[in-house]
Amino acid sequence: MGARVEARLHVAGALAGTLAIDAGRAHYLKNVLRLKPGAWVGVFNAAAGEFAARIDSYTRHGGTLVVDSQLRAPQAEPDLWLVFAPIKRARIDITVEKATELGASRIQPVFTRHTVVTRVNGERLAAIATEAAEQSERLSVPEIGEPLPLDRLLDGWDARRALVICDETGAGPPLARVARDLALDGPHAVLIGPEGGFAPVELDRLRKLPFVTPAGLGPRVLRADTAALAALAVLQAVAHERFGAPPPRFASSP
Amino acid sequence: MGARVEARLHVAGALAGTLAIDAGRAHYLKNVLRLKPGAWVGVFNAAAGEFAARIDSYTRHGGTLVVDSQLRAPQAEPDLWLVFAPIKRARIDITVEKATELGASRIQPVFTRHTVVTRVNGERLAAIATEAAEQSERLSVPEIGEPLPLDRLLDGWDARRALVICDETGAGPPLARVARDLALDGPHAVLIGPEGGFAPVELDRLRKLPFVTPAGLGPRVLRADTAALAALAVLQAVAHERFGAPPPRFASSP
Repeated sequence: MGARVEARLHVAGALAGTLAIDAGRAHYLKNVLRLKPGAWVGVFNAAAGEFAARIDSYTRHGGTLVVDSQLRAPQAEPDLWLVFAPIKRARIDITVEKATELGASRIQPVFTRHTVVTRVNGERLAAIATEAAEQSERLSVPEIGEPLPLDRLLDGWDARRALVICDETGAGPPLARVARDLALDGPHAVLIGPEGGFAPVELDRLRKLPFVTPAGLGPRVLRADTAALAALAVLQAVAHERFGAPPPRFASSP
Repeated sequence: MGARVEARLHVAGALAGTLAIDAGRAHYLKNVLRLKPGAWVGVFNAAAGEFAARIDSYTRHGGTLVVDSQLRAPQAEPDLWLVFAPIKRARIDITVEKATELGASRIQPVFTRHTVVTRVNGERLAAIATEAAEQSERLSVPEIGEPLPLDRLLDGWDARRALVICDETGAGPPLARVARDLALDGPHAVLIGPEGGFAPVELDRLRKLPFVTPAGLGPRVLRADTAALAALAVLQAVAHERFGAPPPRFASSP
């Protein structure tokens, strides 16, 4: 298969033989991208890597792909969670898209005492994460966690996962320095506070936890969504410097 | 004046005595924020710092503020340009907003051979930058440059300004390492390529320029807007580590 791959689809499970695709994806391939049977797409997931697949047929309720040769082997990806207090819809959508590009492995909404937004549409966020992974040549799609109150999240926290809190009180040392001391090839997470700040009782609890490290994001006031993206960008840049990486390329807009 | 400042306004010129505000800002204070005469706002610019000011009156064509005591002295800010190929409207707006929060001093649109978008609404971008500066407690507002073809921008480039190019071919060393060697307290700039990539002739010219340093942004494919924000976040994080900074706080959404 020397042909160009016209789209990438995240497909769970084994990538071999004939794969069924649902009506939504068939519609996207057929009517949005205008791909005819015989065109090539990539199918991928974290466990299997990425394979070329030929569009075999469109049916009334979806379509079928026939898997061909492997394009990329599975590869190690960072085990980095983004934990953040939900924000308004447009901003949460951007956060999920960009966190996916920047390598978050899990996106965990958390309700704090000062969080204003009380509902999160996990399905919409999962769809955004999938689309961003398809666009960004990731092999995995970040998991979208069920929203949890901060206390419950901390009650169940695995202490082996380092938690960097980007703390609006500015008590922490610069994130670039904090990142230098983190095991970025192990489980880690970054927690961005709500726009109203953490409550004192929340900060007290966070600061006493052995797996928590506070960090500061610099002299300017950042919106919560900017803070999330800045923190992920810095962590991935320090990991890139430490571990190296295959060359980056830019995705094109959909 | 011990009262709370209800809004921040960027106002050019001397901040003393009575200041006239235009109809748009008077409308914002009176009808959006519902502030009555007597309420306090902050007025600021890079040269004067920030002052408390009392709303004195609303008139048919605007309003007046009376300047009171200084809240913050002027302060050094990074001399960091973001140079980028224009992208679609929603994404360019986000880029300008977040580049302002992340400390860019100038935002310079540049047309490359593979740039698809051919028009930029500089007035709209300037308004977004001003609003983001008002929200983020910056004292300055980034300048929005007139869009220029890349060749003309490079023809007029001051060689004392280091130019980091985030290069989609991945040829550059990790940005976190490149940033370590930059004089971040001097003039510097980051150039993000267009989503279609630089043309070979553009890359050739860039690589031969003595003030250019290529850098890579890591293993994942980033959209151009994500690349711009990631690069600014990393540069400001390294500057924060090197120079320290007053504590950050988060802005609240408008």
